[in-house]
Amino acid sequence: MESPKPRLGTPPAQEDEVVQSIREALGNGIEALGLQDDAAVLGLRSGTLVVSVDSVVAGVHVDLALCSPGDVGWKALMGALSDLAAMGAAPLGALVALCVPEPAPTATATEPPGRPGRLALGIMEGVAEASAAASCPIVGGDVSQARELAVAVTVLGTVAEGPGAVPRTGARAADAVLVTGPCGASAAGLRLLRAGGSPGAAGSAGSAVAAIRAYWRPVARLCEGAVARLGGATAMIDVSDGLALDLHRLADASGVGFALDEVPVAAGASREEALGGGEDYELVFTVAEAGVAEVTAAFAAAGCAAPVRIGTIVGDAGVRTLAGRELGRLGWQHHLG
Amino acid sequence: MESPKPRLGTPPAQEDEVVQSIREALGNGIEALGLQDDAAVLGLRSGTLVVSVDSVVAGVHVDLALCSPGDVGWKALMGALSDLAAMGAAPLGALVALCVPEPAPTATATEPPGRPGRLALGIMEGVAEASAAASCPIVGGDVSQARELAVAVTVLGTVAEGPGAVPRTGARAADAVLVTGPCGASAAGLRLLRAGGSPGAAGSAGSAVAAIRAYWRPVARLCEGAVARLGGATAMIDVSDGLALDLHRLADASGVGFALDEVPVAAGASREEALGGGEDYELVFTVAEAGVAEVTAAFAAAGCAAPVRIGTIVGDAGVRTLAGRELGRLGWQHHLG
Repeated sequence: MESPKPRLGTPPAQEDEVVQSIREALGNGIEALGLQDDAAVLGLRSGTLVVSVDSVVAGVHVDLALCSPGDVGWKALMGALSDLAAMGAAPLGALVALCVPEPAPTATATEPPGRPGRLALGIMEGVAEASAAASCPIVGGDVSQARELAVAVTVLGTVAEGPGAVPRTGARAADAVLVTGPCGASAAGLRLLRAGGSPGAAGSAGSAVAAIRAYWRPVARLCEGAVARLGGATAMIDVSDGLALDLHRLADASGVGFALDEVPVAAGASREEALGGGEDYELVFTVAEAGVAEVTAAFAAAGCAAPVRIGTIVGDAGVRTLAGRELGRLGWQHHLG
Repeated sequence: MESPKPRLGTPPAQEDEVVQSIREALGNGIEALGLQDDAAVLGLRSGTLVVSVDSVVAGVHVDLALCSPGDVGWKALMGALSDLAAMGAAPLGALVALCVPEPAPTATATEPPGRPGRLALGIMEGVAEASAAASCPIVGGDVSQARELAVAVTVLGTVAEGPGAVPRTGARAADAVLVTGPCGASAAGLRLLRAGGSPGAAGSAGSAVAAIRAYWRPVARLCEGAVARLGGATAMIDVSDGLALDLHRLADASGVGFALDEVPVAAGASREEALGGGEDYELVFTVAEAGVAEVTAAFAAAGCAAPVRIGTIVGDAGVRTLAGRELGRLGWQHHLG
């Protein structure tokens, strides 16, 4: 165990140096990491704030043998942003808490200055890329030493106009169930990587490249979420742990059941991966039957891919079926102790 | 290494059950942990939001042999709230990301249902107590399995009236430097605990009991921070890593130096502990010489203990002295790699 705080009289500078390196390396992508001040000050136009927090832990959510530090940073921010997308909110800013392993004791004596923080920097480069892609500035950060890598991202968003944030609880009997795109690509990408695949391998199919890309660099459906909210979605959730499990959660929260016809499966993925793979970050939402055409048109007008109708909400909360057969809670949960 | 996500077809329920247990056990102290929705929706009266994130890692910031899970939760939330205090902000809400170790593989087969999440529950009980003490509702949470315990807390606050949030950058030559109370108690408490002390030990001095209490259950100076802001503080920082190191940081940010006369040392603590111990969460702030009487009166009117004047800001950023001798950057920093 590392010696606990406080270490009196320890020559300092390492943490401050790392934070400064991150600030310098990331430039505009990072507004205020390891702030000059104790906290960031944000101006708000709207009176409604939407907030969420999500974590990525090495060895649990990600395997650093199969993706880069930058991928971890990207996935951490996009996974958190997906929770905003599922409310129909627009990103306002994010805060990143980073736990990074110390260098091995033998390395500290020999490594030149500047070595500390390389892993932290790599992760924050991916965070900055996702930040730019999603137009979500990083407004706060914290870096801690730890035995294992963990990234916790808190996202702040706003709901500016039209209907309020979309809850999980609003699905009603006879609502249509839609999903923003095919699922299973991320799980398929992970399977391919574990089997030694890579996007650059000779003969890689386009679907394999896309699947690995989906695993490394998933994209939160922020536009789709906002359009679904404006288009009258009654309930919404993102597919983070598995289409089946997440839809069960939406049904639980709404006190309803569902009867699915079929689910769209990403190219190269299996049906089981589409149902239980998770990390797709597609959105599943419900809308009154009479509103399906309108919301579909709104997606088209916004330049989003058409949502796919996969089934119907039923009033009996005990009914949870796919093609007439009971659908289990396929997906991924942490095992806690 | 645990098998990475996704685990297809794993019987689920553990994470959802833990989150539900936490929700039920904590009742009113927790507004929305492991939300029914993907994110929490907050109404805001003011247009200025202050945000910060802070982490507590077992074996780095805390030693579970020397404090309870509840203490860890309390310290994590109060440490984050201290950053709001240092801006003069009032708490609006907090989000808690919890990484907790899995049970040992041999334990899962024999432990009865309900065992998972005991550590998480203990931590969240301390979070809830701190939440109630500081009037800061918990508005979001995330629980992940991990090999080591880590708690990342994001706090949201507002600055409602009077001057804006107090930065670190505003100290000017000839400003007085004040601290809200004596320092070193937390470090002294940790020293006593390491030596086998406890608050209940026969013959424990009152100062020993207070020091251990300060280590286990520090209190963010939220009232003091707001009063200092309203009273004209030009710069402010909280003593999280050490009075000396944190004051150096304030001076760095402001581009100034300081000449301290003496610092107040908590009963039972050494001068070195007061300067470099950290986790005191007292606030150090600067104010124009002409404003010292006014801010002191404001503290009295608010029922806060009188701040202690410890020195003066000087224009030469190279001057960093205590009683005429150079003061090093005593304090604690993480060693990152």
